[in-house]
Amino acid sequence: MSSSKAVVILSGGLDSTTCMAVAKRDGYELYPITFYYGQKHSIELESAKQVADAYHVLDRHFIANLQGMIKGSALTDEEIDIPTGRSLEEMTDENEIPVTYVPARNLIFLSIALSYAESIGAGAMFIGVNALDYSGYPDCRPEFIDSFRRVMQLGTAAGAQGHTIELLAPLQHLSKSEIVRLGVSLDAPLEHSHSCYQGTIPSCGICDSCQLRIKGFQEAGVADPIPYAIPIQW
Amino acid sequence: MSSSKAVVILSGGLDSTTCMAVAKRDGYELYPITFYYGQKHSIELESAKQVADAYHVLDRHFIANLQGMIKGSALTDEEIDIPTGRSLEEMTDENEIPVTYVPARNLIFLSIALSYAESIGAGAMFIGVNALDYSGYPDCRPEFIDSFRRVMQLGTAAGAQGHTIELLAPLQHLSKSEIVRLGVSLDAPLEHSHSCYQGTIPSCGICDSCQLRIKGFQEAGVADPIPYAIPIQW
Repeated sequence: MSSSKAVVILSGGLDSTTCMAVAKRDGYELYPITFYYGQKHSIELESAKQVADAYHVLDRHFIANLQGMIKGSALTDEEIDIPTGRSLEEMTDENEIPVTYVPARNLIFLSIALSYAESIGAGAMFIGVNALDYSGYPDCRPEFIDSFRRVMQLGTAAGAQGHTIELLAPLQHLSKSEIVRLGVSLDAPLEHSHSCYQGTIPSCGICDSCQLRIKGFQEAGVADPIPYAIPIQW
Repeated sequence: MSSSKAVVILSGGLDSTTCMAVAKRDGYELYPITFYYGQKHSIELESAKQVADAYHVLDRHFIANLQGMIKGSALTDEEIDIPTGRSLEEMTDENEIPVTYVPARNLIFLSIALSYAESIGAGAMFIGVNALDYSGYPDCRPEFIDSFRRVMQLGTAAGAQGHTIELLAPLQHLSKSEIVRLGVSLDAPLEHSHSCYQGTIPSCGICDSCQLRIKGFQEAGVADPIPYAIPIQW
């Protein structure tokens, strides 16, 4: 029988908070892991802690410090501005990778989460990537997740010994509005989540991440419980 | 034309020091990266620095601090002893993964090295894994390295945009004695390298890593330039 422990990659955003709710619904013991990598919006770590607390697993919330280890992104480098006011077409153009792409971020997160999962004997890992409304990041695509599953099998003792750790990406084929509906239906503590790349409270409402989130709530017909710096029609 | 920068994963041991020599021979600008992950033999970091210094790249030697992020190995956990005095058959049994296996270590190292390579515009990465005389670690096998190449292509902007970063594992099919001969022929600073899992100077001579290293030098007909705590016949 596989372990009921699941490591959940929790940024503190809408997607990963919904992922926590899915893992909880599916009966897993939650082991959230959150990464500090010098992101300008490090305020999301506070959201991650609040989400972990809402699920009563704050005592086993693993915060991994990768400061200084990841560079080359608008999210980490002072000299690259975070874009604002982009159109939906620009944001969701599959052929354009935005400056908010963080080199190999999901790969690093998955690798450390896998090591943690292996060391605690977890049977599953959750990641909240989604391939629709996803900003064109290559490391959110289903084919990347599939290739990582193969690495997991070949590069670990667990895999070599046939103790498969499942990699679950339950939001992979959902739109943002479907993610909102799923999160709401599972009572995910979305009021504690934070998505704004600028890291402000209230959220800016004009960065890519805010815009995709707002659009998701609007299409779901739900008012976002977090405050924004600009008026939004829900 | 691809970049002449190469990120070299440098532990400070025999294999990675030889890898530095190969990358240098092949004309790359060396960007060594070394990981501290709470290993008991953290003295290898000093060796890595000396090797970087020998190649005049100490000023760009990146030391990544992963302390507390990797657990579940004899190399990291106080409560698990480092085995000594094992027979060659035990050490090289492909079906047995030793307690010195570190969960997802090479995957984490490769992922962070890849992010670094992408952010500095490197055209190649070197890793000194070898599939012979390798202690049975799953993450040293050629099939794991191959699976990582696919991840590199799918999970990065570089890969998605067709700027391939090459992953080179030039020691992959060499025995330890062949690695010694290669290192010696390229004037690799093997006198600065350190392999002992117990982290002692002189090296213990009886842990798996010392034993495989000694055997390599003996079969190559070369005296190891580093000191051992027990008498060795070269």
